[in-house]
Amino acid sequence: MNQADTTGIRSGEVINPAEVQNDAFVQFIGTIRTPFTTRDLCPRQGALDGPDCRLEVLPEWQAALKGIEKFAMLDVLYWLHESRRDLVLQSPKNTGNTVGTFALRSPVRPNPIGLSQVRLIRVEDGAVIVKGLDCLDKTPLIDIKPNRCEYTPEAPFKAADQA
Amino acid sequence: MNQADTTGIRSGEVINPAEVQNDAFVQFIGTIRTPFTTRDLCPRQGALDGPDCRLEVLPEWQAALKGIEKFAMLDVLYWLHESRRDLVLQSPKNTGNTVGTFALRSPVRPNPIGLSQVRLIRVEDGAVIVKGLDCLDKTPLIDIKPNRCEYTPEAPFKAADQA
Repeated sequence: MNQADTTGIRSGEVINPAEVQNDAFVQFIGTIRTPFTTRDLCPRQGALDGPDCRLEVLPEWQAALKGIEKFAMLDVLYWLHESRRDLVLQSPKNTGNTVGTFALRSPVRPNPIGLSQVRLIRVEDGAVIVKGLDCLDKTPLIDIKPNRCEYTPEAPFKAADQA
Repeated sequence: MNQADTTGIRSGEVINPAEVQNDAFVQFIGTIRTPFTTRDLCPRQGALDGPDCRLEVLPEWQAALKGIEKFAMLDVLYWLHESRRDLVLQSPKNTGNTVGTFALRSPVRPNPIGLSQVRLIRVEDGAVIVKGLDCLDKTPLIDIKPNRCEYTPEAPFKAADQA
C-alpha cells in the first residue's frame, strides 16, 4: 500500500491504494504524432475523417511494417503516459454518480493502454499515416495490428479453428 | 544486444536482437479461464458463438466492473505470456515468404498483447462470462473496455469532439 494521491479526485470516485504491480514490461516501439498537443485538444474519440496522424516506428521495428499496406483498417495500441492508473470507480460527469473503470473507455485505467481503430492512409519511410486517433502528440506507440474484421490468418487451418 | 534465441526460427524470419526495453510496467488485473489448455487447442481467432470463457478479476479491481452489464460487446486485452517478442518478419506458412509482425495478428510481437472483441454473456461474482476468445487457459488479463462501436463517452461534450 502507498499513500493514495487524491489530487483531482471527484465525489464518489474510488482509488485502489495498492502500488502498481510490475508483472510484465512494455517496450515502446515508436511515437505517435498528432495535432493534439494538449489534453484539451484531444477528441474523446478519434474520427475516421479526422486529421492525419503519424505512427513513427523505431528503426529496429520498421521492417515489421512489411505487408501492412494491404489493410484498410488497423488496430493501434498506445501507452497513455499521462494517465493515473489507480481509479476503480470514476465520475466522468462529476455528478457523484460513478461508473466502473471497465465500463468506461477513459484513459484512466489500471493499464493505461489506448486502443483505436484507424484508417490507413499511406505508409512512408518507417511511418504509417492514419486517421482516427484521439491521443496526445508524442504518445508512445506499443502495437499495430491489422483490424480483425478484414484479417484472415496467414497460418494454415488447424482443427481448433472449427470451434 | 543479447544472443538471439534462434530456436524454432523459420526460413526467412528475422529477429530483432536487442534486449526487451523496460519502458513501462503492465499489472495483471486477473486471469482468463478458457477451455483451451494447450496452444494447439486455441483457435486462430475467437468465435462469437464459441465456448464460454471467464474473465476472473482480482478482488481489488472487481468494483471496476460496475455498469459493464449494459454493453453487449467488450474489448478484452490480455498478455500472451508464452510468446517470444523479438520477431520482426515472420513466416506463418513456413514457406520462406515473410510478412511483417505489424501486418499479422500473430501472438509473437514486440509487446505480446492480445486483443479480442467478445460478446458479454453475463457478469457474476467478480467475473465476466464472454464468448469470442482465442487464448490459452490462465492467460493474464490486462484490460476490459466497452467496445467502441456501441460506446458513447460519459464525459460532457467538449470543443475538440467536433474534429
